[in-house]
Amino acid sequence: MSAPSRLERQLAFLAEIDALKSVERMTRVIGGARRENSAEHSWHLAVMAGLLAEYAPEGCDPGRAARMLLIHDIVEVDAGDAFCFDERANLGREERERQAAERIFGLLPADQAQDLRALWEEFEHGDTPDARYAAALDRLQGMLQNLHNEGGTWLEHDVPRAKVLARLEPVRTGAPDLWPFVQEVVDRLRPAASRAAGSGDRAHGSDAGPEAAPARKRGAEAPQR
Amino acid sequence: MSAPSRLERQLAFLAEIDALKSVERMTRVIGGARRENSAEHSWHLAVMAGLLAEYAPEGCDPGRAARMLLIHDIVEVDAGDAFCFDERANLGREERERQAAERIFGLLPADQAQDLRALWEEFEHGDTPDARYAAALDRLQGMLQNLHNEGGTWLEHDVPRAKVLARLEPVRTGAPDLWPFVQEVVDRLRPAASRAAGSGDRAHGSDAGPEAAPARKRGAEAPQR
Repeated sequence: MSAPSRLERQLAFLAEIDALKSVERMTRVIGGARRENSAEHSWHLAVMAGLLAEYAPEGCDPGRAARMLLIHDIVEVDAGDAFCFDERANLGREERERQAAERIFGLLPADQAQDLRALWEEFEHGDTPDARYAAALDRLQGMLQNLHNEGGTWLEHDVPRAKVLARLEPVRTGAPDLWPFVQEVVDRLRPAASRAAGSGDRAHGSDAGPEAAPARKRGAEAPQR
Repeated sequence: MSAPSRLERQLAFLAEIDALKSVERMTRVIGGARRENSAEHSWHLAVMAGLLAEYAPEGCDPGRAARMLLIHDIVEVDAGDAFCFDERANLGREERERQAAERIFGLLPADQAQDLRALWEEFEHGDTPDARYAAALDRLQGMLQNLHNEGGTWLEHDVPRAKVLARLEPVRTGAPDLWPFVQEVVDRLRPAASRAAGSGDRAHGSDAGPEAAPARKRGAEAPQR
């Protein structure tokens, strides 16, 4: 048996990552019909990277951030997606993802394996302008889905307002001009705990009831072939 | 009522295109569990654009081709996906897609609407190196899915070998170094009509039975949270 050719390795990797389409995230598609998978989530983020480039931090290359976002979840093919607010599911996550990176990127020719592995690690460390912008978009997208799903996973899982804001914190450094908007949305959705606690958060919020955008069912109307 | 702000228009577009996750294509994910949707398909293509850049035609910017692939199917939010071998479904497709482009890209601020509209039209016309590379990957991805699904839609719909090769023709100009591989795969899968016809195609094929890669169920094994 001869060693696989460069093209064979590239195609084996591309076939392997098809499985990301079957990794479910906690967040739902807009309209709520089903949970989103990590492949379509990555697509959404890469589109955002181009369109929201004007809010990226100084020194960021939005095209490179898009490339990072396209591959940032690939380790989930082996490691699965851990719901961000589930502490138990996140135990050992780093080690599982490291092993996954080793195996999955390792399917590629060495130069490309090294390139994608480094790009993924840069995202994980979050120290560069590209990684910070990418992380901001990752959080922002979850917020948008929840905004259009009447609070979505935040209300569904009764996540306290402070935890929601902490989760969204990367937006403050990765897309600083969008931070006021993020705060406004969180206040508008008023996650469960802020209501339960009464709390000093009131200063930011309106006193009107929840005003989340209505859930839509667009996808169901589109012709399906 | 004041006009929506720039950010509001950008976010309205990003929420609108979430519906692409609910547009089903004919092709199945590897393992065959369900049909693929156009959002995850676009993700797969954008990853391919980076990884297969060494096969791109001269003058191609693979990053720009990836950007093109991320948005090439967005019109399907309104127009749906027409199976490429279904002639009736393709009647009037161009006009439906033109109207969809008008509406959906029109949600964006004018400069971005114009930019994405032009990028989509460039893909549709297929005259530039970026568009040719993008089209080649679009066809190649369908072939990979079918290769890993034991012939997939080609056998399922009894598509004649000549039609399969005509469909894959963009690979010849958009990623010429991959064309011999494409011919080899088509011969290996031996779509229905080539068997029925006997045909002079034999010269390229082996006489062994179909040797498609076994269907896999990876996604089902990955931990789901």
